[in-house]
Amino acid sequence: MHQRSAHRSLLVIGSVALDDIDGPAGMQRDLLGGSASFIARVASYFTKKVSVVAVIGDDFPQTHVDELTQLGVDTSAISRVPGETFHWVGKYSDDLTSRETLDTRLGVFGEWQPKVPEAQRDAQLVLLGNIDPVIQLDVLKQMRAPALVALDTMNLWINIKRPELLATLAKVHTLMINDEEARLLAQEHNLHKAATAILKHGPSSLIIKRGDAGALLFHEGGAFAAPAMPLADVKDPTGAGDSFAGGLMGYLAYAGDLSPKTIRTAMIMGSVMGSFAVEKFSVDGIRDLTNAKIQKRFDDLAELTHFERITI
Amino acid sequence: MHQRSAHRSLLVIGSVALDDIDGPAGMQRDLLGGSASFIARVASYFTKKVSVVAVIGDDFPQTHVDELTQLGVDTSAISRVPGETFHWVGKYSDDLTSRETLDTRLGVFGEWQPKVPEAQRDAQLVLLGNIDPVIQLDVLKQMRAPALVALDTMNLWINIKRPELLATLAKVHTLMINDEEARLLAQEHNLHKAATAILKHGPSSLIIKRGDAGALLFHEGGAFAAPAMPLADVKDPTGAGDSFAGGLMGYLAYAGDLSPKTIRTAMIMGSVMGSFAVEKFSVDGIRDLTNAKIQKRFDDLAELTHFERITI
Repeated sequence: MHQRSAHRSLLVIGSVALDDIDGPAGMQRDLLGGSASFIARVASYFTKKVSVVAVIGDDFPQTHVDELTQLGVDTSAISRVPGETFHWVGKYSDDLTSRETLDTRLGVFGEWQPKVPEAQRDAQLVLLGNIDPVIQLDVLKQMRAPALVALDTMNLWINIKRPELLATLAKVHTLMINDEEARLLAQEHNLHKAATAILKHGPSSLIIKRGDAGALLFHEGGAFAAPAMPLADVKDPTGAGDSFAGGLMGYLAYAGDLSPKTIRTAMIMGSVMGSFAVEKFSVDGIRDLTNAKIQKRFDDLAELTHFERITI
Repeated sequence: MHQRSAHRSLLVIGSVALDDIDGPAGMQRDLLGGSASFIARVASYFTKKVSVVAVIGDDFPQTHVDELTQLGVDTSAISRVPGETFHWVGKYSDDLTSRETLDTRLGVFGEWQPKVPEAQRDAQLVLLGNIDPVIQLDVLKQMRAPALVALDTMNLWINIKRPELLATLAKVHTLMINDEEARLLAQEHNLHKAATAILKHGPSSLIIKRGDAGALLFHEGGAFAAPAMPLADVKDPTGAGDSFAGGLMGYLAYAGDLSPKTIRTAMIMGSVMGSFAVEKFSVDGIRDLTNAKIQKRFDDLAELTHFERITI
């Protein structure tokens, strides 16, 4: 990918975690996980202006941080503090379509009050990963004038901090959630109606991630459907949604504009990167990608959906 | 739609039924239903060379038959015999995503031995609607040299007549089923792997219908994903899959060729017609459509999925 001078800067705030994941392939322990781990790594393929704000404990392997640094990511705001790193333990069903959380040990993540370093308060794109909406809003207030703020959240916050989440939502441009979260937030099963209801809370666009059914974008310019690549080998869905977000935001930073046309392409890049993520465990699917591999899958998605416009 | 001389003829064999449907809108009784009712009506928008082979009882309103005839469909092979018409009673969940069968009264459908009239044995396209695979094969043997034979089936036949179904499958070009049926038939959850397994049984293409996640085509030329239109008002999913099939086969008859390019367009026409079907009860959603309405939704689907091919 050529490095354009027009690249925008991207600030990612989220979790950096260790995961124990059980499933059809057996238990895998201490995998690198966390939303920011996937997002930043994916975005680094598109721009070298990525910085991460996160917290880790003293059990977190420094090699993971070093690897991100080597990819050109600014890791100076990943704070190491005494205590255990956020640790998620989950189990997937045999068909990988559902998962249950067996244990969540917040560790140092539980009392984290993120502080955005002075140098990063001018970031043009901001991705507020899935954390307490009160903290998301606090982080947002530290930013000067971002051109685009995207927010992720989850059922936990929708259920226990709805008013706080809605207050944060009113301040962001884009909400990125999955279909069940959209239904829960809107209290409406129909996704089209749910989107209309959610957009009334402030954001100008809503992206609904639907796993192997692709992703939908709803915004003023209408709707856009990004397909998911039909894959024969799916190993681990963990991080697929975050990789989608990383591809989308990374491409927007790379492209340097936020036109509807560019946002459509960015949705496809999200689908591309999500499809790589699920093919291997942890971040292995998004490790060592090349421009050629990314371009190939982009072209494959274009071919997957191409049809001729006809007049009957 | 202009009537091309190159139109191919389409023979549809399937059920013509009466449905009692319970759901969020309350119980609706004696609705016109059955696969052939949807398929033939939808296909009639694309070609006037549609004929139906079906059976009805003496309780079936003649107006429904007359209406099909007025649309240009050859209904001469819809046989009325003494007894009750096939009657399905079902109940949808409040969110319309699942349904249970409360009662199935086969009536005259139970002992039906379809006979294709001499004049229709030269039909170029054949759609074998969801009936006993032994009967499907018997019908197929009555045809002379169809250019394309498509088959629909259901979990019942996959479960109780698997060997017979596989024998029929070996003789057809295209299998059109939904995702759960594909998984059941292949004994494999992953749809890509399921498709590979199913295509080994003989058909050259497999179409997997996924409801509001669209439809997937797997064939020698690779995969194609047709989106579903995100709709705010969904009233009744009954007949959506059959309307998809009718749009697909109707468009193929209209276009007059079976090239991969035309098949992709036909998949989109399937999605267009399926989207109309769910907006109202019974066949009301596919009644009184115009070329302009069909073209508009086709264009909307094109717009829904359009993105620019870029080089990174």
